[in-house]
Amino acid sequence: MAKYVYFFGDGHADGTAEMKNALGGKGANLAEMTNLGIPVPPGFTITTEMCNAYYENNKQFPEELYRQVDDALRRVEAIMDKRFGDPDNPLLVSVRSGARQSMPGMMDTVLNVGLTSATIPGLIRKSQNPTFVYDAYRRLIMMYADVVMEKAEGIEPEEGQDIRKQLEQILEAFKAEHGYASDTDLGAEEWKTLAEQFKVRIQDVLGVPFPDDPRDQLWGAIRAVFQSWNGKRAVHYRRIEGIPDDWGTAVNVQTMVFGNMGDTSATGVAFTRNPATGENVFYGEWLQNAQGEDVVAGIRTPHPLNETTRTGDTQDSVSLETFLPEVYRQLVEIRNKLESHYRDMQDIEFTIEDGRLWMLQTRTGKRTGPAAIRMAVDMVREGLIDEQTALLRVQPKQLDELLHPMLNPLEEKKNPVLATGLPAGPGGATGQIVFTADDAERWARDGKRVVLVREETSPEDVHGMHAAAAILTAKGGMTSHAALVARGWGKCCIVGCGALQINVESRTLTVKDQTFHEGDWLSLNGSRGILYAGQIPLIDADPETNTEYAQLMQWADGVRSLQVRTNADRPGDASQARKFGAQGIGLCRTEHMFFDPQRILAMRKMILADSREERRRAVMELLPFQRQDFKGILDAMEGLPVTIRLLDPPLHEFINLTPEQVEELAGELKLQPEVIQARIDNLHEFNPMLGHRGCRLGIAYPEITEMQARAIFEATAELTGEGKQVFPEVMIPLVGTATEFEHQEKIVRDMAAAVMEETGTTFEYLVGTMIELPRAALTADEIARRAEFFSFGTNDLTQTTYGFSRDDIGSFLPEYLQQKILTHDPFQSLDTTGVGQLVRMGVEKGRSVRPGLKVGICGEHGGDPASIQFCHSVGLNYVSCSPYRVPIARLAAAQAALTASD
Amino acid sequence: MAKYVYFFGDGHADGTAEMKNALGGKGANLAEMTNLGIPVPPGFTITTEMCNAYYENNKQFPEELYRQVDDALRRVEAIMDKRFGDPDNPLLVSVRSGARQSMPGMMDTVLNVGLTSATIPGLIRKSQNPTFVYDAYRRLIMMYADVVMEKAEGIEPEEGQDIRKQLEQILEAFKAEHGYASDTDLGAEEWKTLAEQFKVRIQDVLGVPFPDDPRDQLWGAIRAVFQSWNGKRAVHYRRIEGIPDDWGTAVNVQTMVFGNMGDTSATGVAFTRNPATGENVFYGEWLQNAQGEDVVAGIRTPHPLNETTRTGDTQDSVSLETFLPEVYRQLVEIRNKLESHYRDMQDIEFTIEDGRLWMLQTRTGKRTGPAAIRMAVDMVREGLIDEQTALLRVQPKQLDELLHPMLNPLEEKKNPVLATGLPAGPGGATGQIVFTADDAERWARDGKRVVLVREETSPEDVHGMHAAAAILTAKGGMTSHAALVARGWGKCCIVGCGALQINVESRTLTVKDQTFHEGDWLSLNGSRGILYAGQIPLIDADPETNTEYAQLMQWADGVRSLQVRTNADRPGDASQARKFGAQGIGLCRTEHMFFDPQRILAMRKMILADSREERRRAVMELLPFQRQDFKGILDAMEGLPVTIRLLDPPLHEFINLTPEQVEELAGELKLQPEVIQARIDNLHEFNPMLGHRGCRLGIAYPEITEMQARAIFEATAELTGEGKQVFPEVMIPLVGTATEFEHQEKIVRDMAAAVMEETGTTFEYLVGTMIELPRAALTADEIARRAEFFSFGTNDLTQTTYGFSRDDIGSFLPEYLQQKILTHDPFQSLDTTGVGQLVRMGVEKGRSVRPGLKVGICGEHGGDPASIQFCHSVGLNYVSCSPYRVPIARLAAAQAALTASD
Repeated sequence: MAKYVYFFGDGHADGTAEMKNALGGKGANLAEMTNLGIPVPPGFTITTEMCNAYYENNKQFPEELYRQVDDALRRVEAIMDKRFGDPDNPLLVSVRSGARQSMPGMMDTVLNVGLTSATIPGLIRKSQNPTFVYDAYRRLIMMYADVVMEKAEGIEPEEGQDIRKQLEQILEAFKAEHGYASDTDLGAEEWKTLAEQFKVRIQDVLGVPFPDDPRDQLWGAIRAVFQSWNGKRAVHYRRIEGIPDDWGTAVNVQTMVFGNMGDTSATGVAFTRNPATGENVFYGEWLQNAQGEDVVAGIRTPHPLNETTRTGDTQDSVSLETFLPEVYRQLVEIRNKLESHYRDMQDIEFTIEDGRLWMLQTRTGKRTGPAAIRMAVDMVREGLIDEQTALLRVQPKQLDELLHPMLNPLEEKKNPVLATGLPAGPGGATGQIVFTADDAERWARDGKRVVLVREETSPEDVHGMHAAAAILTAKGGMTSHAALVARGWGKCCIVGCGALQINVESRTLTVKDQTFHEGDWLSLNGSRGILYAGQIPLIDADPETNTEYAQLMQWADGVRSLQVRTNADRPGDASQARKFGAQGIGLCRTEHMFFDPQRILAMRKMILADSREERRRAVMELLPFQRQDFKGILDAMEGLPVTIRLLDPPLHEFINLTPEQVEELAGELKLQPEVIQARIDNLHEFNPMLGHRGCRLGIAYPEITEMQARAIFEATAELTGEGKQVFPEVMIPLVGTATEFEHQEKIVRDMAAAVMEETGTTFEYLVGTMIELPRAALTADEIARRAEFFSFGTNDLTQTTYGFSRDDIGSFLPEYLQQKILTHDPFQSLDTTGVGQLVRMGVEKGRSVRPGLKVGICGEHGGDPASIQFCHSVGLNYVSCSPYRVPIARLAAAQAALTASD
Repeated sequence: MAKYVYFFGDGHADGTAEMKNALGGKGANLAEMTNLGIPVPPGFTITTEMCNAYYENNKQFPEELYRQVDDALRRVEAIMDKRFGDPDNPLLVSVRSGARQSMPGMMDTVLNVGLTSATIPGLIRKSQNPTFVYDAYRRLIMMYADVVMEKAEGIEPEEGQDIRKQLEQILEAFKAEHGYASDTDLGAEEWKTLAEQFKVRIQDVLGVPFPDDPRDQLWGAIRAVFQSWNGKRAVHYRRIEGIPDDWGTAVNVQTMVFGNMGDTSATGVAFTRNPATGENVFYGEWLQNAQGEDVVAGIRTPHPLNETTRTGDTQDSVSLETFLPEVYRQLVEIRNKLESHYRDMQDIEFTIEDGRLWMLQTRTGKRTGPAAIRMAVDMVREGLIDEQTALLRVQPKQLDELLHPMLNPLEEKKNPVLATGLPAGPGGATGQIVFTADDAERWARDGKRVVLVREETSPEDVHGMHAAAAILTAKGGMTSHAALVARGWGKCCIVGCGALQINVESRTLTVKDQTFHEGDWLSLNGSRGILYAGQIPLIDADPETNTEYAQLMQWADGVRSLQVRTNADRPGDASQARKFGAQGIGLCRTEHMFFDPQRILAMRKMILADSREERRRAVMELLPFQRQDFKGILDAMEGLPVTIRLLDPPLHEFINLTPEQVEELAGELKLQPEVIQARIDNLHEFNPMLGHRGCRLGIAYPEITEMQARAIFEATAELTGEGKQVFPEVMIPLVGTATEFEHQEKIVRDMAAAVMEETGTTFEYLVGTMIELPRAALTADEIARRAEFFSFGTNDLTQTTYGFSRDDIGSFLPEYLQQKILTHDPFQSLDTTGVGQLVRMGVEKGRSVRPGLKVGICGEHGGDPASIQFCHSVGLNYVSCSPYRVPIARLAAAQAALTASD
């Protein structure tokens, strides 16, 4: 005979934690706790198989199920010494869903099942609390009418509105009539009156009465939970999360216990260790004569669990340890049992009904980053877990909390959100508003802390961005200029904050109805993309002194196979990244190097030159600067590889000039301003991202490639001459055809040979390419015939694969995320379904002709843990990310190695 | 014993036409002609295998080769009654390359081999023409020094310049000194002097003497031809054309014959039918006492071959038929023999040496489009070829000459090229310059023929583009706005003509040093992208009366499996396309419909609306117009499917407003102009092609999709009510994820159901999508779960796969094509290597979940013959192209079916 029903209670359960497939997560966990001898309100679980059987069998239950439920119910009654439907001593139950994987809020629940006109008086007698009973009753009615009668049984309301809304309106009208602000203002008689009104309305609207038979209620609720598996929300959620339809949900029927039955009743939540610091102390809150939601709602101030964790704020409250020492002792025992059983910090909920302790839930507790690290390392030392488990216990992104200053979370909570945007640069910051890069630099020189507020940023703003404590833009996505630059420096940044209306002329910022002026204070939570008005205090970051962090990273380096490089353009950034553990540079962009005032003029002369000769002369003026740049960065990374990308951005980025600058340049070049302006106009592009940039520049102007290659190799020769080991890797950008690569490669190799000959030095170098266009991935076999390495430029690859401009995505991305058309921002976390196919294809095709091909990723995804997992799975050699993400990448790479299926 | 040498001469050849692999194309053809009994100057071919053997064997020839060459040479001498190296009666030979596939100009040739100090006097005696002999001698020296001594034997000149240039400089200096303008001004003694000077310079510079032994010359030349197989040009050409390196070249050694040996010598070229009209008459030109190059060079006016083809221009010249009737009779016989043998029109070269006719070459002759069609159909009627062969005889693009007026080619030839651009709209046109769309319309109303000259065009220029005879733009690529619109109307158009400097204010156009004003005349060859100053006469197009064309197209329709649809937005265009044979509409764009002044205001109100309600109101104002649009186009295509694409372009295209227009709109909307301007600025995008467009609009503004769907279905219901059969196919644009498609699909299907219910009509319709983003192709299986058809939007797909903006490609594409980094413009002909992989993947993945999925292509490639071949090979159901390309596509589809390998 098939077993559909699994009983749990009084130290014995039919199921175990391993039976998640049959019992769902919740049911398995309740069984497990019961088996541990922990006091759990008894009940039973109807299996997920019954859910499938229900649908297959035309929504009918087998007779056998009724029998098994009755048996289980009888066992529950015996333990509780109450009976379901008994007028004197009624048992109430909750009926809840529980799938294999948590689907929070997607399915339905009915509480207080078993309250009827017959059982109400008995419960009043037992509880001595008629308000509680009638409140519980009206809750049952509201839930039941909505979940069971309307949704599950498909009874259509005669009037347009759904029944729940109608009942709520009755309640609201009643409160308005009586001048009540809150539900707690209502007394027993009033709830009783409302319950009657509800029942009348239900009969009117749905045409059937609210059931007054406890068994009808129970079976209605069970059926409703199974029905909710195929509810709209649940189906939609499963589709997004990729949960199979045939998993089904279990149904948990469990005794209701109440913490609000009098002075020896209570309710509380606790963590087995301190979730903020990770310290190994029992930490929690409780409330006397209260329900669970009272603790969560924060209406009453909860008391500390014990004396150890009492703080200044809770000086005058009584601890559970003091008030109910025996129950507290029992709770501590459970705490110890749970930790040694689950080997992780638990978040528990308990209720004390009439002096009797009941555990309602245990689950792995959420924790801050520093706490996660401390607990993981502590538990290894305590022998609870091994190092590998410890590595999997810390979410890589949690390291951010150690690496960047943060807004003090307690203070942050007190402030209303001003606006939200994309979390482009992690950490917190506070500063005074400025509207231009020059102002940012000037104010910062005067010792002020500023937030640079811009529509968007461009390479010409870089000095001001560097000076600012944080950057805030109205436009742009996770890989816009502002985001890239900010992340490179580990600077707090929010982009694409559409609510900002910036008026640079009047130096004002308007957000909804609030107007801010230059010098006003803003605070930013860059990890979550939240903007606040005013000044919120910060907590400093200090990873260096955190020994648990150091220990964890050492373990991580021991297990990972992916190398971690950094994206850095300046020697200082390179050194910082090296301190964070970078094993080379995966992307050194060269374009920032041209914005220095000394250099930009030569650059502009180059762009506007009349002839190839003139252009060459202008380009060559840049050679000494570039050589110096490369020498600095190669030196900073001595002993490690440095991938240098040749000039990439469209030329017009360098000639974004005001009329005055045009005049000035015309004077320098001895040309008419109109001629300059005409040439600038001629370079304008409709879609610069798809325009004349990348290797297309080097092909049109080979002298640029020659100059850059010469600078790289002269720097290499000089350092080699000084006895240093340097490994430049020259990267050709935006290659779409093998012929493009070959054209540029030849220039680079010829120059390397020339420099070796001129200097009499030999040195190693590689020539490779970015794979950042779909066509490059599709023809990677052709390209790899000559290219010695690939680096996936997944920012651009995402742009072209989706057809999303990273600078313009702000106009529709929020809507897309909200409507779940996208589950995540593909510029933040790699789209493994689409873009990932191209990455995999690129790796496979590339290695099909060059088996040892070195392949990395240097897009922003190189610092994203989920994307790093993917990079590991497709066999990349390294990921490269901004310096402040290097530790995150090291941990994520370790986790990828530990969880890889092969 | 291996056979390396294949003799041909005097009616017998060792080889045949089938032996192209061993003998190369030229050698096989000479053998074939010889076997046909046609008088070919005797000679022999050294096989391509010897070429490989030569390289494998360290560039040594086997002894056996020398023996076989000697034998063959002896047979040649016997036929010609001359001897190689004989002082009295010397045989001269040419030594030429000949690969399997023609590689024009990529390898080397040496003529007049065998002229030495010993043989010169004998040849002078025979020819009685010392000037001819010394001229031939100096030519041998120049060629030999360059091809054999310097390039093949690798003797480096001591001075920097190559030897050929040095010898040419000597000749130029000599001519300058004597005041000669042309080589023909030099006499025998002068050529003799120069030859001596050449030999001195060769000895000086290369350090070895010019060989005076005929056998040394012969073997040097043979070696040089083999060497030239691995010359730089040849290797580069092979790589681009995909010719394997191991094919090798053959060497053809053949008797020299001379048409300039006196009055009974002559030379000529002829076509076996008239290559301009296709008429079945023998057509050619000849010159008495002349060499082949004299006919080609056009220094002397050639005479007509026969009396039939004599024209007004050649009234006074003597025909070969009259002058040498016996030779002419022989030539006619050869003509008949060749046509019945090759079953195609031949282009032949002949020389008459001392009254004796020699055929030098026969090859398939080039012909005009009308001629190609006439010959193909005639030959079927004559029983020479079958219908399938006839279909393969006409290049689809040649149909353009029938479908569009053309510049008169004879007149065109006389005009210097002013500038070149991309051939965006075929045919020829001439007209007066105007600089704005309004002017174009005004001038055209006044009966003038105008060329609209613009930097680029936008949807707001459409009325002027329609009025103009031709469109000329400085920017843009083959799929830019101007190109798309022009092609849709079959209008002559050149885009991306970078040499144009347009000044709209002063109404001037400057090209290099020439300045044109409004009203000046220009002529355009839109088929080739060539611009001329002034007015060139046109030849009218008239396909309707061409019965051979009609016959050919009928045959084409009989064999093709690909359907051909058209891209049309207006009923008139649809009807035109139907006349051309379109089987439905593959792409009806809806955006043009909004630029009508009556509608644009509603559109702008919609875009700038404050609330969803206001937006809906504005959108709904457009409903009656749209319904009328769709009714018109569905009606025009009654009985055939019509694919309607929902709104695609970024909204800011509709609000490109002048300050005055902003004022006006502000008045209409009762808003401040600054508010309007701010909203417009807010919609600005950095890369609109990758921005908020396509289905992203319909998701953000579902009311647009609702309105369009309602308009389509109301039109459908009305027509259905009138008893008409209409088949709308609603196409969701720019889908990148299945979720996007599902979102829009639901709106469309809900609206169809609503309209069916409201009107009480049932009708058929499909909902499908464009596959125009790499991600759509990569996830086509997910999308096809719901989409009922796919249409590849290869314009956009090419943009994103390459990362090329079609509007900006002009700045580097010419350089890319010139440097052979791209072999063709990928917007013109589909990139089968890269983009093609995505198309194939899209088809396969799509059909893997929906086997009957209807798949088409509606990018510009749908009208490109090479791309159509690919579309057939990947199993598309249809191609869709602009109306004027429909016949081309029909023929190309037939050819694809005939040549498909399966």
